[in-house]
Amino acid sequence: MKIPKAIEKLIESFEKLPGIGPKTAQRLTFYLLHNPQSELDNFASSLKNLINETKICSICKNIGETDPCEICQSSYRDKGVICVVESPLDAIAMEKTGFKGLYHVLHGVINPLQNIGPEEIYINDLIKRLEKDRGVREIILATNPTMEGETTAFYIAKLINNRQSSIKISRIGRGLPTGASLEYADETTLGRALEGRTLI
Amino acid sequence: MKIPKAIEKLIESFEKLPGIGPKTAQRLTFYLLHNPQSELDNFASSLKNLINETKICSICKNIGETDPCEICQSSYRDKGVICVVESPLDAIAMEKTGFKGLYHVLHGVINPLQNIGPEEIYINDLIKRLEKDRGVREIILATNPTMEGETTAFYIAKLINNRQSSIKISRIGRGLPTGASLEYADETTLGRALEGRTLI
Repeated sequence: MKIPKAIEKLIESFEKLPGIGPKTAQRLTFYLLHNPQSELDNFASSLKNLINETKICSICKNIGETDPCEICQSSYRDKGVICVVESPLDAIAMEKTGFKGLYHVLHGVINPLQNIGPEEIYINDLIKRLEKDRGVREIILATNPTMEGETTAFYIAKLINNRQSSIKISRIGRGLPTGASLEYADETTLGRALEGRTLI
Repeated sequence: MKIPKAIEKLIESFEKLPGIGPKTAQRLTFYLLHNPQSELDNFASSLKNLINETKICSICKNIGETDPCEICQSSYRDKGVICVVESPLDAIAMEKTGFKGLYHVLHGVINPLQNIGPEEIYINDLIKRLEKDRGVREIILATNPTMEGETTAFYIAKLINNRQSSIKISRIGRGLPTGASLEYADETTLGRALEGRTLI
């Protein structure tokens, strides 16, 4: 039995997505077969317009509808603090905390194993941004607490320190996440939680 | 920060798919942002054409490119045996075993909790098909070994038996799957494996 071409093509498209294997791709495709055509057309037009209708902000490199983005244009944000994150998703997560500064989105981390050096991500743009905008007081390095994230944070910290030592550079706090139990925490996390203890 | 509408719409489309939660939908959408436009256009056109370019076979209710489908039209298949399955995916799985008979795809199972009765799936079409085509010798009920699958199989078996008792009706074998270990098998599976033991 040949699988119809239209089905095979959609399965292939789904398979290319991260974390979706051949079985899931099949399941999703056959699920969509039972959807009304209007639903599929909607999905298709969202896909088509994804890149056209979004812009990379020329200041912070976040993804938005305008350039400069809403946050860079806003007069309600503290323009003296820039939070450096790996991806737009991280900026969305930071927004939920009520953070009121600006962002700088790197779109990746330094990862020599994947041939991603400092030139491949928006690090130089951050440096140029700081040279142009002299009002920045603090840089919060909020890359992920992974090996690559730490390396990238360290690299950026050194780079800024060499050029503009007046800017305060901080790294997001490390320790136990809310709701965790000490019993199951790994030793690195617990060690960091001890180091980062605060007086009450 | 407002997420751009184009992104939000695509996230919503992904969220509607089974097994894809809000976080995965976000991750997939932002992954696609880094894809070339041609890739997105491809994906979009596969979605648009999914229903237009596929047909439900009027004989076996399987999904194919033609009506009747390739299998129903083929002269290499044993038209005396019909394998009844829940979904087109199950037919694809059966094909891989080298099965050479025909299929009948129910597109669901009887599930009172979800308000799916025998009328909602293609059971009556199977009965009509058997009345028209008197050459069928055997019906293999290959619905899933779940509560609903068993009920559906039992229901179909009774229905056919009442009308055409000359047709042999079988149920796919139950027992231990290849590679399993007795130690971890549940008691129902092991019980069925004992019942369905074969002489060597």
